[in-house]
Amino acid sequence: MADVLVLGCGLIGTSIGLALSQSGLEVLLDDRRPEILASAVARGAGQPWVSGERVSTVVVAVPPEQIGAVLAEAQRLSLGRTYTHVSSVQSVVQADVERLNCDVSQIVGGHPLAGREQSGPQAADAELFAGRPWAICPSSESSPAAVAAVRALAETCGATPIEVEIDVHDASVARLSHLPQVAASALAGLLEPGARGPGDTVHFDLSGQGLVDTTRLAAGDPELWTQILAANARHVGAPVREVAVALQSLADDLDSLAAKPGDREARARLRAFLERGRAGRRLVPVKRGKAAADFATVSVDVDDRPGRLAALLTAAGEAGINVEDVNVEHVPGRPRGLIALLVRDDAVSDLSTALTAGGWSVRRPTTP
Amino acid sequence: MADVLVLGCGLIGTSIGLALSQSGLEVLLDDRRPEILASAVARGAGQPWVSGERVSTVVVAVPPEQIGAVLAEAQRLSLGRTYTHVSSVQSVVQADVERLNCDVSQIVGGHPLAGREQSGPQAADAELFAGRPWAICPSSESSPAAVAAVRALAETCGATPIEVEIDVHDASVARLSHLPQVAASALAGLLEPGARGPGDTVHFDLSGQGLVDTTRLAAGDPELWTQILAANARHVGAPVREVAVALQSLADDLDSLAAKPGDREARARLRAFLERGRAGRRLVPVKRGKAAADFATVSVDVDDRPGRLAALLTAAGEAGINVEDVNVEHVPGRPRGLIALLVRDDAVSDLSTALTAGGWSVRRPTTP
Repeated sequence: MADVLVLGCGLIGTSIGLALSQSGLEVLLDDRRPEILASAVARGAGQPWVSGERVSTVVVAVPPEQIGAVLAEAQRLSLGRTYTHVSSVQSVVQADVERLNCDVSQIVGGHPLAGREQSGPQAADAELFAGRPWAICPSSESSPAAVAAVRALAETCGATPIEVEIDVHDASVARLSHLPQVAASALAGLLEPGARGPGDTVHFDLSGQGLVDTTRLAAGDPELWTQILAANARHVGAPVREVAVALQSLADDLDSLAAKPGDREARARLRAFLERGRAGRRLVPVKRGKAAADFATVSVDVDDRPGRLAALLTAAGEAGINVEDVNVEHVPGRPRGLIALLVRDDAVSDLSTALTAGGWSVRRPTTP
Repeated sequence: MADVLVLGCGLIGTSIGLALSQSGLEVLLDDRRPEILASAVARGAGQPWVSGERVSTVVVAVPPEQIGAVLAEAQRLSLGRTYTHVSSVQSVVQADVERLNCDVSQIVGGHPLAGREQSGPQAADAELFAGRPWAICPSSESSPAAVAAVRALAETCGATPIEVEIDVHDASVARLSHLPQVAASALAGLLEPGARGPGDTVHFDLSGQGLVDTTRLAAGDPELWTQILAANARHVGAPVREVAVALQSLADDLDSLAAKPGDREARARLRAFLERGRAGRRLVPVKRGKAAADFATVSVDVDDRPGRLAALLTAAGEAGINVEDVNVEHVPGRPRGLIALLVRDDAVSDLSTALTAGGWSVRRPTTP
């Protein structure tokens, strides 16, 4: 009996097949599309499944809306002892398998927090899950043996299993991932000429890095995001409405301040809104699961010519400092840039000292 | 007669003094706070102004709410031929000077789009404005000579003057800068435990780069942003309300989809919302005034050890490619990272080829 059957050989399914095969497990693969299956097999993700063959664990990696039916059919054929899937929204799948009268004790949902912009077996990678979180979402009916099997599978793929209840998972990704997506799309959507009134000329020359950062997610695939948001509608609706209500009442305060600039209460509420945002920002994990509060930025003015960034990072490395992230801000129209190095809080003064001694033009450090 | 009198020796005023002095102009300085004036003089930004001394151009660089009164007083004393200021919101200052019966033909507002996290003369820098946009905002009454003088001043500071009407300026920064600030604060504010219901547990382990990017601005100084948003309330209120309304109606659609997952109309509206966001994002200038559509990202998997980032950038430089920006995503808990290099669209294939040939693990390119 083979170890694992992967149903669905897209990016995630094929990557799981690759990771498990490279760890020495025997993996079988199936996909409705023969050319996709052939491609996954050719990549080395496993052998084609022969109808009726049984395995220890079945992994369903088909599009979210098909997962429930595929799980039910696999279980009806008794293909495995444990069943899991990789849906980015967990509760809809659980509702499906309950409705389809599956044996839910054998089913434990999973969600590897890894992905790529590309799809399909060609983009698959055995290292896709390396060090990434992999949410493990048992229902109250899931057997401990099934939970252990799915945790082990995630670990074999190189991921870090994080056990979390189905509803907590969906509510968390709603706030941490789906809501930022929606906000970025809303902001970017307002920039469209069609979204603006005839008098609302916008001079894009006057924009900066803040607009770039806050709208980046809006570049995501609309079809994919429609599916995700629709599947998690129950959890995304409420925080979207909370943001809408907060912005509505802020707009009221701004209107009050426009009419009466001295309105102290409106001003106090505006300030409280900004204070709350700053407090929330400090909770955001920035790198390696560490919060923003643990890091600081050292900014350096450099010539914007090839090799300067590399030389700066070499200098930081020689000073023994690990640079966690880099941001390059060009000075438009001039051969000059500002490079921000994100480092651990306790490395700031060593780095500043070393770079200054090396002749670099260091600005005073700031927290991110 | 000296060339320029700078009233207010904070970060911006002192930086202007430094830039102009280093260009050979004769600069006088004044500040109500003797120690701040002394510090700016010590930095080399100019000489202390002696009461009554006249100059060619007066630059008012005091906090926004004091600008009108300071301009009126300077004009009453006939200190200059041309008067400008550096307010990040222009219309409130214009209203003030009109109310104070100034000779508005001599007054042309300006707004250098440059800044730092720190304030005061110690943080000042002659290069602060180098290559940055400097909005020049004449009123309908401003004389052509005054406009020319203020443009010349911005250019002498190394900036690129961008002439724009007062209302267009304020409406533009409302949408491009002030609205993203508000959205980031609203999103981050929702993360605060106090902002969540008792059942709304959030597992921060499940968050990613999107949350980091969309909430970055929320770290800004609440007092500074209260002033800016209050001053531009007239222009910020409407776009904030537009976002609120868009999110409100999206929340309605999400609620419909939660109740009835097959609701085609709600799904179509959700998708249209995301499409509009993607279209808007393509208008955002990412680097050197170029829009997101002109750039692409080449991602490389690397070991996360000192020197790898420097080596990668050296390899890119040797291939003759100018890297516009860098983003480092660490793989949590593993000595491994994903480095995204932002380059011009037409450099993607050369860079991918060169890095692959050099043994780097290159993922397929994507647009930002």
